[in-house]
Amino acid sequence: VVIVGAGFAGLAAARALAKAAPDVECKVTLIDRHVYSTFQPLLYQVATGGLNPGDVAYPVRGFAVRHGVRYRQGTVVDVDADKRVVTLDDGSAVDFDYLVLAVGAHVNYFGVPGAAEHSAALYTRKEALTLRDEIMGALERAARAGPDGPGAAVVVVGGGPTGVEMAGTLAELRAALPVAFPEVRPTAVRVILAEQGDELLAPFRPELRAYALRELQRRGVEVRFSTTIAEVGEDFVRLHDGSTLPAQLTVWAAGVAVPDAVAAWGLPQGRGGRILVGHDLRVQHHDRVFAAGDLAMDPDHPLPQLAQPAIQTGRHAGRQIARLLTALPTQPFHYRDKGTMATIGRRAAIAQLPLGVRLTGTVAWLAWLTVHIVSLLGSRNRASTLLNLSWRYLYWPGGLIVGDIPEAEGG
Amino acid sequence: VVIVGAGFAGLAAARALAKAAPDVECKVTLIDRHVYSTFQPLLYQVATGGLNPGDVAYPVRGFAVRHGVRYRQGTVVDVDADKRVVTLDDGSAVDFDYLVLAVGAHVNYFGVPGAAEHSAALYTRKEALTLRDEIMGALERAARAGPDGPGAAVVVVGGGPTGVEMAGTLAELRAALPVAFPEVRPTAVRVILAEQGDELLAPFRPELRAYALRELQRRGVEVRFSTTIAEVGEDFVRLHDGSTLPAQLTVWAAGVAVPDAVAAWGLPQGRGGRILVGHDLRVQHHDRVFAAGDLAMDPDHPLPQLAQPAIQTGRHAGRQIARLLTALPTQPFHYRDKGTMATIGRRAAIAQLPLGVRLTGTVAWLAWLTVHIVSLLGSRNRASTLLNLSWRYLYWPGGLIVGDIPEAEGG
Repeated sequence: VVIVGAGFAGLAAARALAKAAPDVECKVTLIDRHVYSTFQPLLYQVATGGLNPGDVAYPVRGFAVRHGVRYRQGTVVDVDADKRVVTLDDGSAVDFDYLVLAVGAHVNYFGVPGAAEHSAALYTRKEALTLRDEIMGALERAARAGPDGPGAAVVVVGGGPTGVEMAGTLAELRAALPVAFPEVRPTAVRVILAEQGDELLAPFRPELRAYALRELQRRGVEVRFSTTIAEVGEDFVRLHDGSTLPAQLTVWAAGVAVPDAVAAWGLPQGRGGRILVGHDLRVQHHDRVFAAGDLAMDPDHPLPQLAQPAIQTGRHAGRQIARLLTALPTQPFHYRDKGTMATIGRRAAIAQLPLGVRLTGTVAWLAWLTVHIVSLLGSRNRASTLLNLSWRYLYWPGGLIVGDIPEAEGG
Repeated sequence: VVIVGAGFAGLAAARALAKAAPDVECKVTLIDRHVYSTFQPLLYQVATGGLNPGDVAYPVRGFAVRHGVRYRQGTVVDVDADKRVVTLDDGSAVDFDYLVLAVGAHVNYFGVPGAAEHSAALYTRKEALTLRDEIMGALERAARAGPDGPGAAVVVVGGGPTGVEMAGTLAELRAALPVAFPEVRPTAVRVILAEQGDELLAPFRPELRAYALRELQRRGVEVRFSTTIAEVGEDFVRLHDGSTLPAQLTVWAAGVAVPDAVAAWGLPQGRGGRILVGHDLRVQHHDRVFAAGDLAMDPDHPLPQLAQPAIQTGRHAGRQIARLLTALPTQPFHYRDKGTMATIGRRAAIAQLPLGVRLTGTVAWLAWLTVHIVSLLGSRNRASTLLNLSWRYLYWPGGLIVGDIPEAEGG
């Protein structure tokens, strides 16, 4: 069995197969281009200097050792479902009896001019680090220019969970400015959240959305609805109505798409490039190939591209392979909604749980903290994240985690 | 007062001036090209995946806030001692009444061909990260090649504390290979420590040197004396006797020199480019300019380029400026030897303390651990380092901290 992608879905599939191990004999190979698995829901904490990249990146080989799985570092460039072989970027071929494709999704700029060049995404460890260093660079440049300088404006594009969490945390960073950056007037630093529609956090219930909006505004985030970006420049964004916003930094959190390279695999793709699967998560017309996570979509039951659907589809794919290996038929996948959460800042979060339970404020924030720390892979990562987030929220403004800031533009 | 460089010496000077603050009125500006201060003695832990870069990098602005100091991000390109002004890379000028120069030293390749291109240094946060990712890349390439592949050899050049600590930790990484990299035969991974002279850790007493050599060899490090490097290639080093060693990776820990840019400042320089200072640490022929740390040298009392001399000279420079500001004459600097330590690996270290106290083994290792954790800046860094080093040594081989490995060569 070959699993491509060591994200939530790929690891869940490997875990399901490892669990079936005594009864089902199979050799599992996990392929990923990175030697670590990224815990994407906390990348915005890395981008804002609250967590180390090492806190949200778990070594795949550590996972492989614990689950009796082989790890192979590489990028899949071709999938031949008939010959049952995947080809890696170094030219080597890996045979499979069953295949799970779970390479996830990446930022989608929707073809907006300048977006790819001038905005920062937040889906990989490296993107989070780049963004962190750019944020600090923008603040240092504002400090050099002094209290009468132009300051800095950050535009966050997209009012989904990623955009809201990023904007909320940036607003908290700004609140610490008078201490850390006395040369910069806090009013000279703007955090603008630009949402295309007329609601933030669309999948949440109205009262939770209203709470989130209130909390963001209370923290000084300028929330703009019905705002469609027409172009991203080096220090501005231009809107569809022709007006422009200043933007020393633009964070693009407006949507995801499957990587372009997936098209070369020759599998059926739907909206956003997602690979079309049947009810049992097998790729349409392919008996031995499963797809899971952000990469996959059952057109009859589309799911949001979040952690829970990825974990559950990955686990289901792994279980179905275990069934096929013991000559049992596959079963259809049923998504179990365990709820959704988003955090706005210190002691402010929203949680929409099953059975109509809805939480806001400190309780929701503690629930968010607990769930995220428990879900991390590896006890060192859990302990380190607990430590760093405690520092961030208890001793705020405590020591930020900073890196090399990029060369000042026009310096 | 302007302090250039936020390393051990620069921070010690700032701290000394802050301490004198109620009696001595002065405005202190700290200039550094990085927004963090690096704790260099633990960089080899970052390079071997035991610590996060954030654990050994403390934000300069956090320090500045606590000590009532201004921070200015930038690189000094010119010093005009007569006009009392330093010029930064962005063209701006900073005036001073008194100046402390403490930009430290950097790797010295001694003009060995290929060394700058094909070997890794270990003096900055970025170098440590690059080396870490290259180590993991070399292991992944060895894993791809399988048990019959060529394996990997690491040559560490220089038998001083940095070289010994790096070689010892690499040997411990190798001991974990059978678990994490089952595709690689441990005997196919070689750690070679190449020393030009006939002794490791020259400043230590003979019995401590003998212990260190024994411990390194017991861990499988190939220690080679009288080995002078003539050339460094992509996957080999050539020695002066014409023979070559395989070296998928070369770590250059053979010596330091003052950055080339310092020559442009027009100050008197001695061996290794170090700025020549008088007994009170004022730069020769300059009344208002002090130099401290690795950058400075009193030709009558040369000191090793280590943390303790840097801290003590920096503090002395700060105190002398406080004296000059209150119209007192300067005092000569006297170095107080507090001892030296080096660690070879888990529960193996050497410590040479005052009054003839010499420690080896677990006791020395615990002393090393305690001193280094206590010396770190910031309580978050201390807690995080304690956590991560505990994990490394208690739960070995636990979760390594890994990053993006560079593109495979010839892939």
